[in-house]
Amino acid sequence: MSATATMFVSGPDQRGLVARIANFIFENNGNIVHSDHHIDAETGLFLTRVEWELEGFRISRPEIAASFAPLAEGMKMTWELHFSDERQRVAIFVSKYDHCLYDLLLRHASGELRCQVALVVSNHPDLRPVAEHFRVPYHVFPITAATKQEQEARELALLQQHGVELIVLARYLQVFTPEFVARYPNRMINIHDSFLPAFVGAGPYKQAYERGVKLIGATSHYVTERLDDGPIIEQDVMRVSHRDTVEDLKRKGRDLERVVLARAVRLHLEHRVLAYGRRTFVFE
Amino acid sequence: MSATATMFVSGPDQRGLVARIANFIFENNGNIVHSDHHIDAETGLFLTRVEWELEGFRISRPEIAASFAPLAEGMKMTWELHFSDERQRVAIFVSKYDHCLYDLLLRHASGELRCQVALVVSNHPDLRPVAEHFRVPYHVFPITAATKQEQEARELALLQQHGVELIVLARYLQVFTPEFVARYPNRMINIHDSFLPAFVGAGPYKQAYERGVKLIGATSHYVTERLDDGPIIEQDVMRVSHRDTVEDLKRKGRDLERVVLARAVRLHLEHRVLAYGRRTFVFE
Amino acid sequence: MSATATMFVSGPDQRGLVARIANFIFENNGNIVHSDHHIDAETGLFLTRVEWELEGFRISRPEIAASFAPLAEGMKMTWELHFSDERQRVAIFVSKYDHCLYDLLLRHASGELRCQVALVVSNHPDLRPVAEHFRVPYHVFPITAATKQEQEARELALLQQHGVELIVLARYLQVFTPEFVARYPNRMINIHDSFLPAFVGAGPYKQAYERGVKLIGATSHYVTERLDDGPIIEQDVMRVSHRDTVEDLKRKGRDLERVVLARAVRLHLEHRVLAYGRRTFVFE
Amino acid sequence: MSATATMFVSGPDQRGLVARIANFIFENNGNIVHSDHHIDAETGLFLTRVEWELEGFRISRPEIAASFAPLAEGMKMTWELHFSDERQRVAIFVSKYDHCLYDLLLRHASGELRCQVALVVSNHPDLRPVAEHFRVPYHVFPITAATKQEQEARELALLQQHGVELIVLARYLQVFTPEFVARYPNRMINIHDSFLPAFVGAGPYKQAYERGVKLIGATSHYVTERLDDGPIIEQDVMRVSHRDTVEDLKRKGRDLERVVLARAVRLHLEHRVLAYGRRTFVFE
Repeated sequence: MSATATMFVSGPDQRGLVARIANFIFENNGNIVHSDHHIDAETGLFLTRVEWELEGFRISRPEIAASFAPLAEGMKMTWELHFSDERQRVAIFVSKYDHCLYDLLLRHASGELRCQVALVVSNHPDLRPVAEHFRVPYHVFPITAATKQEQEARELALLQQHGVELIVLARYLQVFTPEFVARYPNRMINIHDSFLPAFVGAGPYKQAYERGVKLIGATSHYVTERLDDGPIIEQDVMRVSHRDTVEDLKRKGRDLERVVLARAVRLHLEHRVLAYGRRTFVFE
Repeated sequence: MSATATMFVSGPDQRGLVARIANFIFENNGNIVHSDHHIDAETGLFLTRVEWELEGFRISRPEIAASFAPLAEGMKMTWELHFSDERQRVAIFVSKYDHCLYDLLLRHASGELRCQVALVVSNHPDLRPVAEHFRVPYHVFPITAATKQEQEARELALLQQHGVELIVLARYLQVFTPEFVARYPNRMINIHDSFLPAFVGAGPYKQAYERGVKLIGATSHYVTERLDDGPIIEQDVMRVSHRDTVEDLKRKGRDLERVVLARAVRLHLEHRVLAYGRRTFVFE
Repeated sequence: MSATATMFVSGPDQRGLVARIANFIFENNGNIVHSDHHIDAETGLFLTRVEWELEGFRISRPEIAASFAPLAEGMKMTWELHFSDERQRVAIFVSKYDHCLYDLLLRHASGELRCQVALVVSNHPDLRPVAEHFRVPYHVFPITAATKQEQEARELALLQQHGVELIVLARYLQVFTPEFVARYPNRMINIHDSFLPAFVGAGPYKQAYERGVKLIGATSHYVTERLDDGPIIEQDVMRVSHRDTVEDLKRKGRDLERVVLARAVRLHLEHRVLAYGRRTFVFE
Repeated sequence: MSATATMFVSGPDQRGLVARIANFIFENNGNIVHSDHHIDAETGLFLTRVEWELEGFRISRPEIAASFAPLAEGMKMTWELHFSDERQRVAIFVSKYDHCLYDLLLRHASGELRCQVALVVSNHPDLRPVAEHFRVPYHVFPITAATKQEQEARELALLQQHGVELIVLARYLQVFTPEFVARYPNRMINIHDSFLPAFVGAGPYKQAYERGVKLIGATSHYVTERLDDGPIIEQDVMRVSHRDTVEDLKRKGRDLERVVLARAVRLHLEHRVLAYGRRTFVFE
């Protein structure tokens, strides 16, 4: 398939939105290969995701945004435009667990994740060999309560310098300050090792064990100021039994964490997720 | 929500399809609440399912089809038009197992299935009390090899008389003649008690037990001339272990069968399924 | 298979437990068809579930308990003895939702649940026709804040009169007083319409919708004094999306609720569940 | 937990088996931490898996087998004895796909798989860097129809030299000769990229796509002379839709393959699997 453009449009519902967007593409000789339109019954929000082939499209790539803008403005639509062959720059944050990091770097290497992994950031030096095996720069910023603010500032500078557009917290065990979070709204994805909203905070597998649940879960969500409270992108669960110790739950959980995080990252990178309040709309 | 119209359109891909359909609705003051457009990469087939509110639509309900026909013809599209408040007439065929029959009638009673259950047909009298409990007519047509053709003719006459548009085989253990099948192309839904294409034919749970599979399945599909070979609408599986006897597999399987059949019937009734060759496109 | 005896033994771990229990059976010419022994690493609790054929067993059925008692006493074991052909007497409590009631009565009719359904109790008259269809007595006890205590006393008298050993709350929307709960410790099974401990209390599907979870769940648990807090017997989940309204979640949830409740009831009736603190041990 | 001994015993059923085995352990002051006994209703085969603490056990480790042998002989039992701190030697065979190899080596590194990965064998040089990253020897044996027999002989010599007890085919795309297979009966584990017995042989994802299934699967099984026909150890499935191309099925399938293979290998290494005819008994 040739390169495609994807437009993700949302706003308050009104008549003619689908037609106007489709006409914009059709009148410029675009061929729509996929389009999905949904109106949320609760909020009246409309969402459209439309993808068309660039080959033969009469507007040149750099001019598409400017051409579409007046139409969007007239209808008070919020929108994003993406091209399938342009890759977002991603930073992966880790602490000491390696399973999610390996998983993301392997998927990236196999072509599953359309992005550039610009760098890996950690508060520990332990996972440097993993990053090096995949030829990705690795930066260490040790964090203490006293240095957190200062170190975050240095991290932000580094992220900016690399043009990072998405931060993936691949079992990064530090909590960010609200100031840091505010810099990457709906562009920082965390994996929490429970089926949220059950077992918020530290030690979710221990909590799950003590409550005696029969399924454990993992949840991938955008980071907001409130811990483990951001819009959920993806979740999954796995069966456990009384034979499983807390260590078994952690082992089984690792398989969940890496798959759920990877799915969320992939959905985000393909511009299939729109966060709205505490919910997400996911166009699969 | 007020009543809606749903159009299901398919055909060979060409530029402008989405725009033309959306314009048809917009120009007549329709408000699209949901639309989904897909192009199948293998076949080049496009499929669009679009739903809009009838309230305020400028074309009166009986004239919509005639108004849309020229547009469709020009683009060589196959299409269907449905209204959310019109209910299809359904016949349920059963033999002696009652779990799928109860399940469908209960779902219908709870409003899950938008249809009229016109009648229940069986080759045995056993399930009459179930049909009567739900106040649905029950007709018995005993079948032997010698009488099959004749009985099918009588069944067809009865179905026609009731205006039946969809036949659901809810564990009906007779095989139909090709002549019967040809009368309800992609309008006869069967539930097979295995994960097709594994374990075609009789005694799938016994076959599954002997093969030692770790999951059993159920498959809902449109009936074609070839046994258990029609386009698959829905499938699901359940975990089993060496502790499960063939009887246990049958018991567990009943839970699969009723859920998988009900989902397929619901998808069909909501005009979300398009069969094409041996595959289906399901717009959820 | 001929009738079997099942012994469920638990207590503080010590050497020789498995051997002594197995010897007791072997020396009396019993043939063990299934046995499962587990030591809980956290608590040091041992649990054994052993099942043997009664045919050829040298101790007559009424004397088995008395013969085993001294052995159990010496080892400080708690134990239960059950015979596969003796059926527990069960009361089902319902309000107005019919899906779990139908489900349990259908499974009972098909032989899935080894019990006698002694009666159905409700705070509303609505589901009488369902009970009558399955020929089960139906008793109505309307409940208000003012009459709850008095009505519970009458219910308890009725349960006692019917020799009820297990109460199944099949979407019974009243909360019991602690006094009532204390009468059926670990013998009252509830179905809660969420993945506990997420969404405790009223309106879990609304809560789930608002939190934007990607899976909904159902949880079957023993009832304790604290709402939705008792030991969990079984849980399961189902995928949902942003397209699902609260009504869709309720509809999908019904399929979860009935299956999860039925599994828990079956496990309890087959003496496969031991509650210990807030956890259960389930011997499948 | 201290080291434990695990005995896996099977044979034709007879009275007293559980008692005799338990007594053997108890009389020698062993403490059973887990025991599971099952009689297969179809075949009359009994299976017992029992694990006890070695600490305090009166028979020294090297003499346990000789002490148990007479008892086993008298009862015509087949048996195996394993110690939790002794690790099997494993060879992993690969071709060019790296996902299962990475997965196994990562799980091994994290302590999930109790074994020694003695070497990686391949018919291609491509995955040498992966093996080297984990410091495992990598041997290449190019295979053609003409050289297969000779190369297999060299592989067997190498495996013998390394004392390999288990072969894991981690997407190794060569078929072995019956002579090779006969050398590792029930000790060679393959991952097949379909839900067997559906889609035997080459290109299962293509086959699945063309049949239009709604779930894809993966199957881990012991290798026998007949292709994809050996006893199944583990299976799992994943949902797909008409939007998924054959490439998407392959991508989704990779997640299944690695998890299903890893589970089977783990079960085998923990002596939880007994193959009997075309079925396996799995003691989880």
